[in-house]
Amino acid sequence: MMTKPDVLLQIRWDADNKVSAFADRLAGREVLNYEGEAGVDLSAVRYAVVWKPDPGLLASLPSLEVIFSLGAGVDHLLSDPQLPTDKPIVRFVDPDLTGRMVEWIALQVLLHLRQQRVYDAQQRKRLWQENMQPAAKDLRVGIMGFGELGQACAKALLALGFPVNGWARSPKQFEAVTTYAGDGELDAFLNHTDVLVSLLPYTQDTHGILNSALFEKLSRDNPFGAPFLINAGRGGSQVESDIVAALKDGTLAGVSLDVFETEPLDPYSPLWGFDNAIITPHIAALSEPNALANYVGDQIERYEAGRSLENLVDMKRGY
Amino acid sequence: MMTKPDVLLQIRWDADNKVSAFADRLAGREVLNYEGEAGVDLSAVRYAVVWKPDPGLLASLPSLEVIFSLGAGVDHLLSDPQLPTDKPIVRFVDPDLTGRMVEWIALQVLLHLRQQRVYDAQQRKRLWQENMQPAAKDLRVGIMGFGELGQACAKALLALGFPVNGWARSPKQFEAVTTYAGDGELDAFLNHTDVLVSLLPYTQDTHGILNSALFEKLSRDNPFGAPFLINAGRGGSQVESDIVAALKDGTLAGVSLDVFETEPLDPYSPLWGFDNAIITPHIAALSEPNALANYVGDQIERYEAGRSLENLVDMKRGY
Repeated sequence: MMTKPDVLLQIRWDADNKVSAFADRLAGREVLNYEGEAGVDLSAVRYAVVWKPDPGLLASLPSLEVIFSLGAGVDHLLSDPQLPTDKPIVRFVDPDLTGRMVEWIALQVLLHLRQQRVYDAQQRKRLWQENMQPAAKDLRVGIMGFGELGQACAKALLALGFPVNGWARSPKQFEAVTTYAGDGELDAFLNHTDVLVSLLPYTQDTHGILNSALFEKLSRDNPFGAPFLINAGRGGSQVESDIVAALKDGTLAGVSLDVFETEPLDPYSPLWGFDNAIITPHIAALSEPNALANYVGDQIERYEAGRSLENLVDMKRGY
Repeated sequence: MMTKPDVLLQIRWDADNKVSAFADRLAGREVLNYEGEAGVDLSAVRYAVVWKPDPGLLASLPSLEVIFSLGAGVDHLLSDPQLPTDKPIVRFVDPDLTGRMVEWIALQVLLHLRQQRVYDAQQRKRLWQENMQPAAKDLRVGIMGFGELGQACAKALLALGFPVNGWARSPKQFEAVTTYAGDGELDAFLNHTDVLVSLLPYTQDTHGILNSALFEKLSRDNPFGAPFLINAGRGGSQVESDIVAALKDGTLAGVSLDVFETEPLDPYSPLWGFDNAIITPHIAALSEPNALANYVGDQIERYEAGRSLENLVDMKRGY
């Protein structure tokens, strides 16, 4: 006789590797990958591990104790109007995911600094030509969203020679980073930023925050004469029509975007077509299946041993 | 009446900015940018600051006391059969040049790790597609030529999460780097290297060292199933026909080359045409004019104050 599942997975993509990693890590438990099939008894599910769960699914689980987000962001959960607000929600925080994000951000900042897209175009023309070359010290990188991920990125960027600023809702201190906090210091932060890196979560406050008015406040006092925008946070934070306009009129010297208002990005979006716009398909920091499964397994063990869960979402802040 | 020059410059390219930087820094001295003009009295020249000097020029200067190389390498000097071997030769060593090299090396290693050229091709096709993504920890970077520059690169690569090995003629110790020394340990170094970074000087020993036989010894035990080659040392160290063959048959997963057997690289070279070959025109670490002028000015002041010159070339080693 089949035992009722006590761990429910709803994974959405590339599920096979993840399901097998969870089955290995949670051996001895009944793990179900649930894709909305009818007639499945979910009455015993205590733990739900989800990405963009079906609206109402979580509210329908009578024995649910903990919700695990498959990503660092939880906007994919908060958009469920029936999300149970009395259950703890654990965000995925993992050194592996952090490392991936650091790689991608460092790569993108260096790509713009070293004008790699210009050299790529020259290579296609078999053209040997030296271009003006500012140094890392000439571009101040400003990181918006200066938590766990932002600080790890700052550390690597400092090691590469970039001056780094950070902006967060609440004051922070981190190594040689100049930090700014709250709405009152946002303009000062932007004025001192040549390369804006957004790692912001998606909330009511960050919806559409990366827009023309903000781009105008960024520094133009750098060797490129215009600022760069890099977004690996959430697409809902950016206004893509404003980014297109800023690339066209030179308000932005270049962008790197890993996230978009609608994903996948529409093949007809003009963003694909700019040489100085680097477009990647939400791959900056993919969660590695074993890292995900180990993290959830560890948290469940902590919880059942009576210890506190880690990286809980604050429902008031929205992340 | 014109004073006889006591500082001679022979700069070769992009000379204007450099000449004016030297004139500023060495104000009060007679500085001459010499391009081989007839009838110039060079009898009072004590200091020569050169890049690829005319063969025999340095030997013809009766009052010469110190030779300054405009780059970190000195093969451009050693190829002069009449080079005076009894004069001190000072290499250019500068934090700015080091920083530039670190930027370029970190960028190239990340470009290969994160398969940016694959994503660039997808962008041109407006294709949203996730590819397998190894992490920095999965690629061991091996730096050949583990001096000043190599160690600075190692520091940044470690901060990005890469395991780093170093190989040098003599044993070295540096942070978390596994180091190998001399011919006896070269094969072991290559066997443990997934991304080979060459910063080797050009000498008799390094001529053509980056060839098919060496590529065969590199590790294939990484998620790409083949190693990468990055050369920012000297073009004379590489056998370009072997690199082309290795790219064609998959012995190498990709390359980044900033230096070439003959520069500029021939427009008909097949190297330009590979998607997984990143070609840049010897721009990895350009010397910034003011940094050059300050460095030489400082050394001349040290010398005239009776202190020792720094970063002297060892003629026996050839660098």
